Amino acid sequence: MSQQQREAVDRMLRDLPPTPDDLPMAERRAGYDAFMARTVPSGVTVGPTVLGGRPALSIVPDDVPAGPAVILYLHGGAFVMGSPDGYAGFTAQLARRAGARTVSLDYRLAPEHPFPAAVDDCLAAYRELLDRRVPAERIVVAGDSAGGNLALVTLLGAREAGLPLPAAAAVLSPLTDFTGGGASVRTKADADPVFDADFLVPVRAAYLGDHDPRAPFASPYFARLDGLPPLLIQVGSNEVMLDDAVRFAGRAGAAAVDVTLEIVGQVPHVFPMHYEVMEEADAGLTRAARFLSRHLGR
Amino acid sequence: MSQQQREAVDRMLRDLPPTPDDLPMAERRAGYDAFMARTVPSGVTVGPTVLGGRPALSIVPDDVPAGPAVILYLHGGAFVMGSPDGYAGFTAQLARRAGARTVSLDYRLAPEHPFPAAVDDCLAAYRELLDRRVPAERIVVAGDSAGGNLALVTLLGAREAGLPLPAAAAVLSPLTDFTGGGASVRTKADADPVFDADFLVPVRAAYLGDHDPRAPFASPYFARLDGLPPLLIQVGSNEVMLDDAVRFAGRAGAAAVDVTLEIVGQVPHVFPMHYEVMEEADAGLTRAARFLSRHLGR
Repeated sequence: MSQQQREAVDRMLRDLPPTPDDLPMAERRAGYDAFMARTVPSGVTVGPTVLGGRPALSIVPDDVPAGPAVILYLHGGAFVMGSPDGYAGFTAQLARRAGARTVSLDYRLAPEHPFPAAVDDCLAAYRELLDRRVPAERIVVAGDSAGGNLALVTLLGAREAGLPLPAAAAVLSPLTDFTGGGASVRTKADADPVFDADFLVPVRAAYLGDHDPRAPFASPYFARLDGLPPLLIQVGSNEVMLDDAVRFAGRAGAAAVDVTLEIVGQVPHVFPMHYEVMEEADAGLTRAARFLSRHLGR
Repeated sequence: MSQQQREAVDRMLRDLPPTPDDLPMAERRAGYDAFMARTVPSGVTVGPTVLGGRPALSIVPDDVPAGPAVILYLHGGAFVMGSPDGYAGFTAQLARRAGARTVSLDYRLAPEHPFPAAVDDCLAAYRELLDRRVPAERIVVAGDSAGGNLALVTLLGAREAGLPLPAAAAVLSPLTDFTGGGASVRTKADADPVFDADFLVPVRAAYLGDHDPRAPFASPYFARLDGLPPLLIQVGSNEVMLDDAVRFAGRAGAAAVDVTLEIVGQVPHVFPMHYEVMEEADAGLTRAARFLSRHLGR
């Protein structure tokens, strides 16, 4: 069954309109939200909140145990698209499987708000959780793609600010190297149903502009990585960003960070998002949720 | 507690006599067996057997479920030392935690029996399991260090022979690249309490002799890796062989193999062997056992 599922997901992704760089940004964002739309499962309460001065979505499973414990979720969308509302179904699944309250942050998007606006928003959100007396060891950070980048950078920012670090982070297909230094940018371009070998060019233009792509808060691959909490990194074998995951895992591990890298064969970018239609995705999302749950002490 | 545990293990490893290349081989082997000696836990029956024409140790937990299911274990010891008897306590722990019968193979050792004698023995053992009508999907292979190399090479050999492949393999700090191509050979030489940057020289001389160190059955890093079953790779951050794990994981993942790479911070080569005295080791051994158990369908 699963090979058919994988092929169906690949066809769906390949049939998406080509990256619509010429569309008005509002249409691109609406299209991405529609692509990400999933049913919010029953037993999860979703509602607006504010965190670190930014809008956010609060996602609370009914049966969440007492006591403070938060997943801070940072959505993907190439730094220019994506929203907590568009991700509500996906993050509600994560929250329910982890048994933990989740806050999904509406960080500022490029190109209107380029680097480091999103970085600042994510760190402000984390700081407010601490200010609200959620202990750092009861906070975990998660994110996909661009949001995986921001999750890792939030750890770096917290470390640089001398803040206590979250208990763990789970990142799905994170973008870690804006220089495109991994071989998979080329070797996986044909296999990747979402991105081609030039995918970084528009992302970098919109988000980084003239900033150095090797700046640690832009490309965490180039950062000092010691002192980070345990990391789960999930990635598919059919992605130009495969090596962003492998090389980051290697550098983090060399810095004595506890790293679990899961490479899943024949699946695309941020494969857990396809949990409704693909077994590997469903299983991967559950593993990510359990990793977060375990590090929340649940 | 755990930092003290790690430091105690490191001191113990650093206090081992320097690699006693000048000792008679019998003394080196006896010393390594003494180093590996662990109490066989109660509830596990250990006894001699024969597999693929070689002596082996059969390790059977009392409460093992009915039906054929086997862990084929390949011990470490740099291809020149190690034995199923020396590893009896360690493999009995693995068998008990996995809830599965384990067969630990006494493959031929170098320098008396250089490459590819051990490779041939391991593949013959796997083939006999199949001949005894253990279904391939009820066999998993595991090994540490040199035995991790042999576990991976056994998969390659089975694939080349057109045999059905085992359900999974778990390798602890595997030696995957006899050319020493990973940076950690140098960058981790000071942090590694067991090996220095020149560790490959005597191993290669004894095991490979004049064989090409890039031959796929010598250094699986250089092999075609497509078609392999799910792999768990565990490695410590304080090892010259760290990159043997990271780079192999990256190449296997790029070939669409399902790979879980666990890098554990501040722990040494084959850290799960220290399960009696270090929390990370105990937890790591349990994770490896559960991975094998899950892929045996238990």
